[in-house]
Amino acid sequence: MKFQFENSYEVKEKIQKSQIAILPIGAVEAHGPHLPLGTDNLLAERLSERVAEKTGAFVLPTLPYGQVWSLKNFPGSINISNETLISLLVDMGISLYEQGFRVFVMLNGHLGNAVALKEAARKLYAKFPDFRILYLFYPGIKKVTEEVRETKSSHATYFHACEIETSYMLYLAEEYVDMSKAITDIPNIPMSADITPTPWEEFTSSAVLGDAKLATKEKGRKIIDAAIENMVELIAGAKNQMNRRK
Amino acid sequence: MKFQFENSYEVKEKIQKSQIAILPIGAVEAHGPHLPLGTDNLLAERLSERVAEKTGAFVLPTLPYGQVWSLKNFPGSINISNETLISLLVDMGISLYEQGFRVFVMLNGHLGNAVALKEAARKLYAKFPDFRILYLFYPGIKKVTEEVRETKSSHATYFHACEIETSYMLYLAEEYVDMSKAITDIPNIPMSADITPTPWEEFTSSAVLGDAKLATKEKGRKIIDAAIENMVELIAGAKNQMNRRK
Amino acid sequence: MKFQFENSYEVKEKIQKSQIAILPIGAVEAHGPHLPLGTDNLLAERLSERVAEKTGAFVLPTLPYGQVWSLKNFPGSINISNETLISLLVDMGISLYEQGFRVFVMLNGHLGNAVALKEAARKLYAKFPDFRILYLFYPGIKKVTEEVRETKSSHATYFHACEIETSYMLYLAEEYVDMSKAITDIPNIPMSADITPTPWEEFTSSAVLGDAKLATKEKGRKIIDAAIENMVELIAGAKNQMNRRK
Amino acid sequence: MKFQFENSYEVKEKIQKSQIAILPIGAVEAHGPHLPLGTDNLLAERLSERVAEKTGAFVLPTLPYGQVWSLKNFPGSINISNETLISLLVDMGISLYEQGFRVFVMLNGHLGNAVALKEAARKLYAKFPDFRILYLFYPGIKKVTEEVRETKSSHATYFHACEIETSYMLYLAEEYVDMSKAITDIPNIPMSADITPTPWEEFTSSAVLGDAKLATKEKGRKIIDAAIENMVELIAGAKNQMNRRK
Amino acid sequence: MKFQFENSYEVKEKIQKSQIAILPIGAVEAHGPHLPLGTDNLLAERLSERVAEKTGAFVLPTLPYGQVWSLKNFPGSINISNETLISLLVDMGISLYEQGFRVFVMLNGHLGNAVALKEAARKLYAKFPDFRILYLFYPGIKKVTEEVRETKSSHATYFHACEIETSYMLYLAEEYVDMSKAITDIPNIPMSADITPTPWEEFTSSAVLGDAKLATKEKGRKIIDAAIENMVELIAGAKNQMNRRK
Amino acid sequence: MKFQFENSYEVKEKIQKSQIAILPIGAVEAHGPHLPLGTDNLLAERLSERVAEKTGAFVLPTLPYGQVWSLKNFPGSINISNETLISLLVDMGISLYEQGFRVFVMLNGHLGNAVALKEAARKLYAKFPDFRILYLFYPGIKKVTEEVRETKSSHATYFHACEIETSYMLYLAEEYVDMSKAITDIPNIPMSADITPTPWEEFTSSAVLGDAKLATKEKGRKIIDAAIENMVELIAGAKNQMNRRK
Repeated sequence: MKFQFENSYEVKEKIQKSQIAILPIGAVEAHGPHLPLGTDNLLAERLSERVAEKTGAFVLPTLPYGQVWSLKNFPGSINISNETLISLLVDMGISLYEQGFRVFVMLNGHLGNAVALKEAARKLYAKFPDFRILYLFYPGIKKVTEEVRETKSSHATYFHACEIETSYMLYLAEEYVDMSKAITDIPNIPMSADITPTPWEEFTSSAVLGDAKLATKEKGRKIIDAAIENMVELIAGAKNQMNRRK
Repeated sequence: MKFQFENSYEVKEKIQKSQIAILPIGAVEAHGPHLPLGTDNLLAERLSERVAEKTGAFVLPTLPYGQVWSLKNFPGSINISNETLISLLVDMGISLYEQGFRVFVMLNGHLGNAVALKEAARKLYAKFPDFRILYLFYPGIKKVTEEVRETKSSHATYFHACEIETSYMLYLAEEYVDMSKAITDIPNIPMSADITPTPWEEFTSSAVLGDAKLATKEKGRKIIDAAIENMVELIAGAKNQMNRRK
Repeated sequence: MKFQFENSYEVKEKIQKSQIAILPIGAVEAHGPHLPLGTDNLLAERLSERVAEKTGAFVLPTLPYGQVWSLKNFPGSINISNETLISLLVDMGISLYEQGFRVFVMLNGHLGNAVALKEAARKLYAKFPDFRILYLFYPGIKKVTEEVRETKSSHATYFHACEIETSYMLYLAEEYVDMSKAITDIPNIPMSADITPTPWEEFTSSAVLGDAKLATKEKGRKIIDAAIENMVELIAGAKNQMNRRK
Repeated sequence: MKFQFENSYEVKEKIQKSQIAILPIGAVEAHGPHLPLGTDNLLAERLSERVAEKTGAFVLPTLPYGQVWSLKNFPGSINISNETLISLLVDMGISLYEQGFRVFVMLNGHLGNAVALKEAARKLYAKFPDFRILYLFYPGIKKVTEEVRETKSSHATYFHACEIETSYMLYLAEEYVDMSKAITDIPNIPMSADITPTPWEEFTSSAVLGDAKLATKEKGRKIIDAAIENMVELIAGAKNQMNRRK
Repeated sequence: MKFQFENSYEVKEKIQKSQIAILPIGAVEAHGPHLPLGTDNLLAERLSERVAEKTGAFVLPTLPYGQVWSLKNFPGSINISNETLISLLVDMGISLYEQGFRVFVMLNGHLGNAVALKEAARKLYAKFPDFRILYLFYPGIKKVTEEVRETKSSHATYFHACEIETSYMLYLAEEYVDMSKAITDIPNIPMSADITPTPWEEFTSSAVLGDAKLATKEKGRKIIDAAIENMVELIAGAKNQMNRRK
Repeated sequence: MKFQFENSYEVKEKIQKSQIAILPIGAVEAHGPHLPLGTDNLLAERLSERVAEKTGAFVLPTLPYGQVWSLKNFPGSINISNETLISLLVDMGISLYEQGFRVFVMLNGHLGNAVALKEAARKLYAKFPDFRILYLFYPGIKKVTEEVRETKSSHATYFHACEIETSYMLYLAEEYVDMSKAITDIPNIPMSADITPTPWEEFTSSAVLGDAKLATKEKGRKIIDAAIENMVELIAGAKNQMNRRK
């Protein structure tokens, strides 16, 4: 159910029944030559739709701007500060709560947003103890990813425009991928990148962290389906918990 | 040109050529029984596309959340504070300027955003004197609207889900209008509504300000085409001015 | 009743009886060669006194600094940001409420303050639902102004140091007007001034928007008396509403 | 020279000649039965006029609202937070500097404002090293006050509505003093009032800290004239220093 | 009792019994050639320990960073803004209150912190009326100091790295004093330093305000013991007051 | 070199030579029955001393308060918000840069601080591009920890008061550990704890995440020595980089 296509006469009752709002949140950010700037928005949006189908949740309109510090000097990136993003999510959360939602899922397609999402969630939790706020970024996929990937990850925490993320796109938004332009670019990310501010232009000129050429729809399917399953379960758990509290 | 479907390898040169970014900005807000909550988003987005075609501008992803103070207690509305909206637009403007844009058009589909847009524009102008920031809300349509409308406006400044706005939707996003549910509800807006905080539930239960039944695609066409023409002219003027400054 | 000339031993009872505080708020701003920088302060203050007489309200000391973005580069202008003005009015409103006032009238003599006044009023309304906050800028004078004026208005929304405002001054503060210096300066305000940040020096060097020479005390009287009547009625309405809520 | 009665055509040259702006700043605050709520405004304003005469300075419109934490629960007090007051003074200072002033005198009539004035001055000094900002509260009168007063001060730092302040009023604004209502009320201010938040209602019900009956115009004259002399000297010193820096 | 050496299993009961938390707060700041940068931290910490012993209070870990505006351009000084310091103390106060403390003593070793401490205390008092917050800076020592000192104070309000403060150090932290480097440097502090932002480099190059050579442990003992006695009494008073409120 | 025991006459030259400031930052937080509340402060401080010895860095006074959201409801915890912590670190960083430091190492003993440290580092980096800011939390110890530990980690990212952290304490601050009170408490941390705000009392009553009884000094030595080696190398790298930029 796309929230913004509902009308105000019928939506109240539907909210009370569903209780769950999913906000797809991504970013506009450089993703190499083969993926569009809006890759994280497309992924977040399509994941949200699939998860909503399985949970009876509403999908809110995608928030297409995120925190893009690391890649902000790359062509096409648009960066929002953490402070702004936190304020925005808190404002939205207050409205959602007042509208009757009791589970607010921030379905995140862009790792750079993670700090703001967690902080916003904590602020909302302090305000409304009976409001469950989830921040989800491909949860519980470590094992399946390791099985699927043919190349080693460039970095322990993040991946970008690589074998993995390109596979996601091939599975979820194939029409926006141009595999003929896919490249292999495995940067040597220095240890210092984890402990001092390090814009990515210091170690990559392509913004691709790995071998995008190895991406396949099937790899994407395996990981994404696992992620969806985990998300559905986490949301169901949150909803049950809220209902028990009543 | 949809900005988020570009890739980072080619976008830099295109930005330098176009120089113009259009941000559609709307809101999620009650619009009566016949129009969807996302009406203002749909209008802003489709207007942006048409204006972009005529100006060579990029269309950024729609910002679908806005300041919805007056209707925030109606089912389905999501409200963002002015402070948050200003911060978000200023952050975005800084990125757009750094990316090479020199004309930033906030194409607004929701009157409640007007204060934040103007304030954000002033802040960006103070920061970057050679950056032209436009905030557009159906400019220069007073005369044509008066010619077209069959009913008197409920209010001197705003209109909502009425003959006029429904006509816009019929012209730009007909597939989201359910005319079978259109109603006539002409509220008596007290003078005090202009001079003291007045949530709209004090004078309307439908959120429709007028006779939606009288809406037609043709009425929408006349006004919208005039608005588009004006917007195209204003944007061209801004771009010329920027180029002269070089 | 001038609030600041009361003493603390007697004022409490008087507040409970009156319930209404009027804050004159203006600005220090260029007003051409014939009007003083403090024109908006003088107008707000003298209007407040007349309105207070008819409503039993207290007049607070004039807040003589306002948001003067458009004219801030003209000699003599002093500019306060919207953020600051909002904070100040919210702080004051809290004190007034705690002191026992239930109607807070911001009687505005300077259009540039309008955004801040409305925002502050909304913040106070959220805090104290039984507090009525009014922001008044010559309400309900459109018709009488059109009857009175001999020249067309330079702009649909604002007027400045022109036939109209000079007439106000001749009626309310004649001793500060030097009609021998009055000028005719009808600028061509471009449409872009409404949709992009446009300091007024871009279209006027005098800060006069019209024909100040045509100003007369009688014109001022007609409009101002209508404005006063409307303000008295709006304040009475607000007070009645508050009393009914008790 | 009252700044707000100047006009924008002539004021620029005058500013360049004078360079000095004096802002009278006071408060609306309980001052016992014999003095008006606006006592600190009246004192600041009249002192400013006398000092301006002797220094060729402009007097800005009085800022009549101040930080009134200690007496905010007394009838008639209006309290502004330090944060707001600092923002307001910084905004004003920026405008004054841009208008060509190089000495900004905050002539304070209310001790509660002292913290905000000093902080604002430091912020402006950081922004404009060639801007001299003074915060003056009856400077250099310790000795003359000790000679003049017949009763001991209730507190080492502050005085209020007492022999001293009432004498100031008798000298500077006699028409607002009602000596027939003057009282003697010498509170025992506990040592803890200096080291823990202590609203004044904890030790006084009158807000008078001493023997107001002993006030005389002559006492006021002696202290005030000394204060004026010191202020004139400090301002002259600041102006000379600025001119030397050129 | 040093709070941070307690464990979480036993501390709850101890807090309920003690109710008092002392926060030593100092600064890192130039103190001439004979005293270390951390002088104010050492003094605050050791005073806190002595006061805690006599009051059954907990000593929290020292907050070693303070507002050092006046000396921030001297080698070794580290400056924190008032805003930051206030936020920090308010955050801490909230936690202390929630942990069960009812008396929060900010034992200050650095005069520059005084404004922030008082403001933070007021904010916490507004939040928790049954929380007593004390800000102590050598209270009640005026008389004993005048008896003890051999040289006149350079300034009515502050002293620094001089006969007095060096004596404090000799008594409380002798091992950090190098009397062989002590100097005599009596600056002429202009009257303007009290009324306009004046970094201390304008009147001293040593940061010593007086004759450090005259410092003795015995002088320190006399003043410090008096200060301790006063602090103990003020804390006992605050605790009794809280207990009576129960 | 402990910074606060230096004096201002000699410190300038030493700063220019060293260029490196290490700030130990920890927290006051529940650490079970066998470890003190100040565990993270002790670890950060002692690690800093060892690292400083090997790098010629200055050790600043420990910042003993941190972000303790997860454990803030446990006895003894003191919580500082991320906003406050960021402001404090940015203020400090500005002073350190102005004092001549070019490498600012935030040596962190408490994982909860990580978000604030990274954000503060980015803000400082934006302000001073030739300032290298490091945030270090036991870097590069994954492998050695896996070799050393006898029990599985309770959580992929964090550890607390367990076999590992207790071993650190035994190696670095043995005198504050009471192994006789060490417990085994292996909580079942639900997956939801990673994706929704989850105060730790929801899954542990002891705040111990594992088997503290298995801690040994030797285990601590192995991991800590590896961490120190990595930190020394990262700091040396940062210093070299800064020197090359000159």
